[in-house]
Amino acid sequence: MSDRFTHLDETGAARMVDVSAKDVGSRTARAAGRVLLSPEAVALLRSGDVPKGDALGVARIAGIMGAKRTPDLVPLCHPIAIHGVKVDLAVTDTGVDITASVKTADRTGVEMEALTAVTVAALALIDMVKAVDPAAVITDVRVEEKTGGKTGVWHPPEERHA
Amino acid sequence: MSDRFTHLDETGAARMVDVSAKDVGSRTARAAGRVLLSPEAVALLRSGDVPKGDALGVARIAGIMGAKRTPDLVPLCHPIAIHGVKVDLAVTDTGVDITASVKTADRTGVEMEALTAVTVAALALIDMVKAVDPAAVITDVRVEEKTGGKTGVWHPPEERHA
Amino acid sequence: MSDRFTHLDETGAARMVDVSAKDVGSRTARAAGRVLLSPEAVALLRSGDVPKGDALGVARIAGIMGAKRTPDLVPLCHPIAIHGVKVDLAVTDTGVDITASVKTADRTGVEMEALTAVTVAALALIDMVKAVDPAAVITDVRVEEKTGGKTGVWHPPEERHA
Amino acid sequence: MSDRFTHLDETGAARMVDVSAKDVGSRTARAAGRVLLSPEAVALLRSGDVPKGDALGVARIAGIMGAKRTPDLVPLCHPIAIHGVKVDLAVTDTGVDITASVKTADRTGVEMEALTAVTVAALALIDMVKAVDPAAVITDVRVEEKTGGKTGVWHPPEERHA
Amino acid sequence: MSDRFTHLDETGAARMVDVSAKDVGSRTARAAGRVLLSPEAVALLRSGDVPKGDALGVARIAGIMGAKRTPDLVPLCHPIAIHGVKVDLAVTDTGVDITASVKTADRTGVEMEALTAVTVAALALIDMVKAVDPAAVITDVRVEEKTGGKTGVWHPPEERHA
Amino acid sequence: MSDRFTHLDETGAARMVDVSAKDVGSRTARAAGRVLLSPEAVALLRSGDVPKGDALGVARIAGIMGAKRTPDLVPLCHPIAIHGVKVDLAVTDTGVDITASVKTADRTGVEMEALTAVTVAALALIDMVKAVDPAAVITDVRVEEKTGGKTGVWHPPEERHA
Repeated sequence: MSDRFTHLDETGAARMVDVSAKDVGSRTARAAGRVLLSPEAVALLRSGDVPKGDALGVARIAGIMGAKRTPDLVPLCHPIAIHGVKVDLAVTDTGVDITASVKTADRTGVEMEALTAVTVAALALIDMVKAVDPAAVITDVRVEEKTGGKTGVWHPPEERHA
Repeated sequence: MSDRFTHLDETGAARMVDVSAKDVGSRTARAAGRVLLSPEAVALLRSGDVPKGDALGVARIAGIMGAKRTPDLVPLCHPIAIHGVKVDLAVTDTGVDITASVKTADRTGVEMEALTAVTVAALALIDMVKAVDPAAVITDVRVEEKTGGKTGVWHPPEERHA
Repeated sequence: MSDRFTHLDETGAARMVDVSAKDVGSRTARAAGRVLLSPEAVALLRSGDVPKGDALGVARIAGIMGAKRTPDLVPLCHPIAIHGVKVDLAVTDTGVDITASVKTADRTGVEMEALTAVTVAALALIDMVKAVDPAAVITDVRVEEKTGGKTGVWHPPEERHA
Repeated sequence: MSDRFTHLDETGAARMVDVSAKDVGSRTARAAGRVLLSPEAVALLRSGDVPKGDALGVARIAGIMGAKRTPDLVPLCHPIAIHGVKVDLAVTDTGVDITASVKTADRTGVEMEALTAVTVAALALIDMVKAVDPAAVITDVRVEEKTGGKTGVWHPPEERHA
Repeated sequence: MSDRFTHLDETGAARMVDVSAKDVGSRTARAAGRVLLSPEAVALLRSGDVPKGDALGVARIAGIMGAKRTPDLVPLCHPIAIHGVKVDLAVTDTGVDITASVKTADRTGVEMEALTAVTVAALALIDMVKAVDPAAVITDVRVEEKTGGKTGVWHPPEERHA
Repeated sequence: MSDRFTHLDETGAARMVDVSAKDVGSRTARAAGRVLLSPEAVALLRSGDVPKGDALGVARIAGIMGAKRTPDLVPLCHPIAIHGVKVDLAVTDTGVDITASVKTADRTGVEMEALTAVTVAALALIDMVKAVDPAAVITDVRVEEKTGGKTGVWHPPEERHA
């Protein structure tokens, strides 16, 4: 396994992989996910009765800040320069769709940063609505696209896109 | 909306809700989620060829530490005393099931801490296996049980348990 | 000086003062400050042409999260339980007025938390508008009211309220 | 507004601006500010009766460390390499003048880092003296000079230098 | 082992032990350690030619702030209320002796906080002197005394006090 | 002293040294240290009765994550890109030997990161075993090798290797 799970050495011990030899270059990643909400919570998010800026705005900010905390949260992630983050939230009939795009010009991909942005935005959104809907569910969090590095453009295989 | 989304005041502005008046008391929360993995990644996690301690162990530690970072990540969460955290990971045929249990004796519930533990453990696991399976998916992250506080014991309604 | 500057011991060395003997009790603090902006920046903040939710919202969230980071930033501050934070931003003819109210039921006052909330909100606001106004100024940051603890209700003396 | 406030996209949503295309180059920023103190506090800071090293020293260290925390505090700031930080504190007749100089060789300016260093140093100083002077005021925090990047050398316009 | 190493459950998996049932009470811990330095470095620390406040002062502040970061650094440590921290540094003929005293009124002992304060102060000191002495050594870091909790007053056995 | 202790300016004030002029280049550092444990604790760490993965694994992860926190802990350390970290723990007859290797391609050496990794791993290990051995001692923490930068390969002088 150790020669497959690159974060483990030949004895199975965790390590932060040496990326010194990797090229510095433009890399992007886009991740997505969904928070499933009750009809009542969706209706409130859609209603125009009161300013809603902060409801989704808090989740967006949390996602952006979350991307920057990735190396603090994911033990073997490298601390890298993040050059741009965008987090989009769209209210749907069943909840909120979240997409995060992250860009860097560093030695490692930024898919973990994009996934962290999506999940932290989702956590913040659930925290915002939990008084109305304590049964929210985070689902379908996945990398949708990666570019740059040795691999070039990558998309998940069709059959994994449930 | 403002009188329903308790994190928003009457103008829709975000705030950290005043919990001074809430009782200090024993509260617990259990959250769960799953990481869907490729058959190859599952086989490697199950194989006995090399020490696997760190593969799931890193995710477990990340989840426990993640619970402690909740107020840093979720903007309106209160910083509270966490009295116990347990994160379990079980390899299944389709991936890894994650459960996190958090306990406190403070003024707010700990469901956000439990959800954060699950999602951070999931992120760390994906980071560990991403060289083998770059298309892993986090799914079904939700609160399974809450106890304590005014509400007492709470479980999500049947129909939300997809 | 050492018997006056309580953070210094008798040799002038810094210490985190022992507060074990202090009462646990409800304490609040309110701090305020202003960011002076160019007329152009004020006009943009006031214009209704585009959604503005995030412009002031980011500063508000930053202030709330900043309050929680106080013990990380201010070396001798005690890590305490924060029970509520409210950050208000009001656009005026000359900039933005910021007020932060913090509540706790712990052993120390929360004036540093309130001051930190105001200054971090001010920094975030300046960051938001700096492409339009790179010469913004933070001014008049001060504690306006403290309640609780041995002192009871405290307001700054008139002559210090420039 | 969105085409002026660069941190907002065309819908008004916050984002971390993509700086990939910006040049890596030497950039500096100097910010300044003042903490207004009571005559008694000034006298104590000036008195030679006891070692004073730590009184101003704590504020200086807090400012330097604060500069490093800028991306944690200011939601849309990029995490960047800081190559040098200097924080000076000078006791005056009315309080303490604080100046912070920050240097980098990265893609963004460091004026937010310099402003953060000044404000965190100011907060730490207020915390040090608050037993003697609970009515301290932070004022006149502003960028004094920026060099590097597309803009070259920048100083605030005369009329903003109140 | 699992019934001895309390941080491991019966399967050997790490967990944050549930301390809900422990008494809240006054607890203290004192830890000590030494940094061995070259005669040249010791002479410089002792010389009176220039202000030395910051040389040891930086290490002292780092130690105090380090105590507050213990739950961020030590994975299974509980986040607790720290009520007082004191870090003393004494220059000796062979280096610098460091002692840290930590006090709380919470559910767990604070020996990890005291040990963290000593080691972080030692790291900061080494960083300060490394241009003069790159071969500094941290040694003899240990708990010297604990009070409070079920155990009452505890001192290390004689034979462990090398 | 100020012209020797590079972190102090000519007045003795602390500063983060400007490293802009230093070369970006491959640099490595290896640090080591030991945790002295009771025979009982050593026996438990060596026993095969229960899974031990997490016992040493937690310390290893803590060390790797600690390396990333170096600029948060050591006040004047530069935040730098870490390209690889490896932490090894070996159980001996008297305790556990810890070695940490850190690699970067940045402007400063990484000896502080390596020392921090060793000490944080040691703290985490002590936390894991403290129910069995509350008298553990951290000792002999030192840099063993540095490469890169102006100095090239460096080893501590023989006589400092106690």
